[in-house]
Amino acid sequence: MNLYDKIAHIPDFPKEGILFHDVTPLMADGEAFREACQTMIEFAKKVNADVIVGPESRGFIFGCPVAYELGIGFVPIRKPNKLPRETLSVSYDLEYGSNELHVHKEDIQKGQRVLIIDDLLATGGTVEATIQMMEELGAEVVGCAFLIELEELKGRELLKDYDVLTMLKF
Amino acid sequence: MNLYDKIAHIPDFPKEGILFHDVTPLMADGEAFREACQTMIEFAKKVNADVIVGPESRGFIFGCPVAYELGIGFVPIRKPNKLPRETLSVSYDLEYGSNELHVHKEDIQKGQRVLIIDDLLATGGTVEATIQMMEELGAEVVGCAFLIELEELKGRELLKDYDVLTMLKF
Repeated sequence: MNLYDKIAHIPDFPKEGILFHDVTPLMADGEAFREACQTMIEFAKKVNADVIVGPESRGFIFGCPVAYELGIGFVPIRKPNKLPRETLSVSYDLEYGSNELHVHKEDIQKGQRVLIIDDLLATGGTVEATIQMMEELGAEVVGCAFLIELEELKGRELLKDYDVLTMLKF
Repeated sequence: MNLYDKIAHIPDFPKEGILFHDVTPLMADGEAFREACQTMIEFAKKVNADVIVGPESRGFIFGCPVAYELGIGFVPIRKPNKLPRETLSVSYDLEYGSNELHVHKEDIQKGQRVLIIDDLLATGGTVEATIQMMEELGAEVVGCAFLIELEELKGRELLKDYDVLTMLKF
């Protein structure tokens, strides 16, 4: 199956001048969704991950099936005021304004082999912030997996030291 | 495994007087997460679902593994300005203010057998709104599955006509 055919490209969403790559048609197609998850599962096995970490909310979509299939934990990265126990947080700049991400401190163990999963690698700000939190908690980031890579935004340059899977490149 | 032991109960979160039931310890435990997903998968098989529908963002956590395992689609229910194609939306009242949910119209087909999955059944407002959208699109809601039910909030009374699974009751 050609997964490229399952991505919709929506001009001027969420604002003028942005071309939005919509993964929901792929998710709605059971065969395509399963194939995309299986590719990530093979990668998770290759890097020998023992926990999956995914940013809200689209990181949950691909990350949770991988954790389920391998019988390993899933730890969410969330925006402020979503996680009730003690968190580690990191802020980073966006084109306009800034973003703050949190993780429950006690859900990541020293020495754990973390695979970070998200739907999209764009500028790489979210994954860079997530890596920073994982390493501060003493975990080892053994890989980063994305369904889509927007190559011209060069997020991959931030990930030179990591094993990276991207499945669809635009 | 006793899944009850994997839920954390946090007083006064997100605001004073609320007891928050935190599912993230269950998610972080690979064996517990897999067992919870498997119970939902058995229910999805029993009701013969052919698509999983889940509200953002915690509906993705349990709904996506079920869709993956069964090789069927997953359709997200999202807040405003998240879905780029044509949506059907519904608004409903909360204790303070109101909430608006959207679904991509073309991702639900007439006659589809929908299983709605979320982490928590509280007052039932979200699931009731989701059912309304599914039925307006001509789909059949064959079941609703939740990890947790807060019994005193009586959300189940809204679901008398549906097949309901709740795994942990508080």
